Amino acid sequence: MNPPLFDARFRDQLADLVRWRRDVRHFRTDPVDRALIDELIGLATLAPSVGNSQPWRFVLVDDPERRAAVRTVFEACSRDALADYAGERARLYAQLKLAGLDRAPVQVAVFAEREPAEGHGLGRRTMPETVEYSVVTAVHTLWLAARAHGLGVGWVSILDADRINAILDVPGNWALIAYLCVGRPEEEAAEPELVRAGWQQRLDASQVVFKR
Amino acid sequence: MNPPLFDARFRDQLADLVRWRRDVRHFRTDPVDRALIDELIGLATLAPSVGNSQPWRFVLVDDPERRAAVRTVFEACSRDALADYAGERARLYAQLKLAGLDRAPVQVAVFAEREPAEGHGLGRRTMPETVEYSVVTAVHTLWLAARAHGLGVGWVSILDADRINAILDVPGNWALIAYLCVGRPEEEAAEPELVRAGWQQRLDASQVVFKR
Repeated sequence: MNPPLFDARFRDQLADLVRWRRDVRHFRTDPVDRALIDELIGLATLAPSVGNSQPWRFVLVDDPERRAAVRTVFEACSRDALADYAGERARLYAQLKLAGLDRAPVQVAVFAEREPAEGHGLGRRTMPETVEYSVVTAVHTLWLAARAHGLGVGWVSILDADRINAILDVPGNWALIAYLCVGRPEEEAAEPELVRAGWQQRLDASQVVFKR
Repeated sequence: MNPPLFDARFRDQLADLVRWRRDVRHFRTDPVDRALIDELIGLATLAPSVGNSQPWRFVLVDDPERRAAVRTVFEACSRDALADYAGERARLYAQLKLAGLDRAPVQVAVFAEREPAEGHGLGRRTMPETVEYSVVTAVHTLWLAARAHGLGVGWVSILDADRINAILDVPGNWALIAYLCVGRPEEEAAEPELVRAGWQQRLDASQVVFKR
């Protein structure tokens, strides 16, 4: 098998993919083919992982009662968060739509198996958090591949992880990494919704790049 | 600005990119244009981040003394790790090349600003670890974009993070996420080096996908 050669056209499109990815909270409700979701998860499992430990565990959440319970957790956590803000920030926060749990046709909870046998501990003796980080690379792979298919992904983090584990009846040693909403986005944009909403602007490279 | 349309050809190439990404430890020593590294970091800063907090901090490590010090930390940590294995595993471990610190022309330490003002706390009240996870998505973006340019990336995690912070003289509240080696790879492969070396095989989808 010959290695693929990536040309300038592909690189430009990849940059466009990165630019137009977005964290989506406004979804259309039309269903997504389950075979496509399986394909996206399959690609996600080719993400890097520490010691090739592959600690990602994907849970497709279809049951309406479980979905409703997750949404209830989100709403409680978001109410608590709102109470931390005052004045203009509180007003802005209350206007943000922070999750597509009400409409996204596909919902996937992604966990990390905290102490996987796979990988035989390689690479995580001094930085055990690389197990969780490995799962994040899988989430991001799924996200980019989904966008290339015209699907939007939204990462919901305003959740009490212990309660999600209980609702989804998964092992206690699985760490919730991301609860993902997936579906066709209602709109496309090159700017993050939080930029457009005036919550947080982008930083300049000079603020995040240093030399030593 | 019209949203880009991604076609089947692009999706196939993206899948190839994911398949042929690799964690590289065998580098050629020819230099890499610094403008390209800047471009890759620029794309990485378009990664998702919790509350648009953009907590990534990239440190280009050029100073030979600092590089040598990082390598010394790696070698000590790897020796300690070897002592955890016995028999055949120890023999295998000793044969693995676990970092390209000896030859990679570009080295980038990537940190997370643990309590960024940016984002105003949004999305990280219940899951503060999403700050670190945001930086991981930036690392993975850089990784994929680098591969599309024919560059290999290797994520070194066999390090004592506190010592790396000290060597690179960065703020104590920056969390080391990844120490990256970047350069032209000596070889291309569709299989992870740890699979080829007999350390850890790939899992089947049935072991990592569940329904609820």
